[in-house]
Amino acid sequence: MKKFSNKISIESLQRISVPEGDVLKFHSLNDKSFSNFGEAYFSYIKKGAIKSWKKHTKVTSNLVVPYGKVRFVFFDGTNNFHEEVLDDEINKKLIIKPGLWFGFKGLNYPHSVIMNLIDDVHDPEESEKMNYQDINYDWNEE
Amino acid sequence: MKKFSNKISIESLQRISVPEGDVLKFHSLNDKSFSNFGEAYFSYIKKGAIKSWKKHTKVTSNLVVPYGKVRFVFFDGTNNFHEEVLDDEINKKLIIKPGLWFGFKGLNYPHSVIMNLIDDVHDPEESEKMNYQDINYDWNEE
Repeated sequence: MKKFSNKISIESLQRISVPEGDVLKFHSLNDKSFSNFGEAYFSYIKKGAIKSWKKHTKVTSNLVVPYGKVRFVFFDGTNNFHEEVLDDEINKKLIIKPGLWFGFKGLNYPHSVIMNLIDDVHDPEESEKMNYQDINYDWNEE
Repeated sequence: MKKFSNKISIESLQRISVPEGDVLKFHSLNDKSFSNFGEAYFSYIKKGAIKSWKKHTKVTSNLVVPYGKVRFVFFDGTNNFHEEVLDDEINKKLIIKPGLWFGFKGLNYPHSVIMNLIDDVHDPEESEKMNYQDINYDWNEE
């Protein structure tokens, strides 16, 4: 990855091939990047829908897409954007440290599933939000 | 649920309705049932495929199906079976304590996704396995 920000890193996930259906390791106490476990939740995103923008001020997110296809967009607050597309065949985890704006768009019909594992319990006061129009980014670009 | 075993419990998950796609809370440090975080992994299961039987001797599993539909079957080692069907619209988490045999069958084409969050890191020596034929259970029954 071209260096965009030290607030984002990407890790390969271990996929174990099984005839009945693979096993995909997502997150472990033994991972070098492991900090703490706070909460794990799923965010569904319909095809063409956009959820943006959000910035955590304290929490680190670990993101994976177990079903579907999602475009994530990261914004450093100046003029730099970074995109990552995850789907259920890309064995990658995104680790997003606090301080980065991010949003995402669903690319799979009828929806995609994102798992977000954060290192503290959810606190609505912890994150900042903007409407998707508030940052000048062309979500229509494929 | 008819009482089958004190080794299995079922919890409702909180689903937050969002126009772009719902948020489904799976597991939190604040859950009453929370014990410890060890590892989180996805198990894919093809339609019609069966993964069975496995018994953890130390680890507690927290199971959810974020995509597809899966039939879980539990066996107490004597003659008692218990079935639970989970899909991505059933807001339930299964909590399986050690000592129970379990297996599952994929009911969705082309596959389903199970998330398993266990309270210790994976150790192949920790679980016992049997072939699916080793326990007399009719997997074809719908």
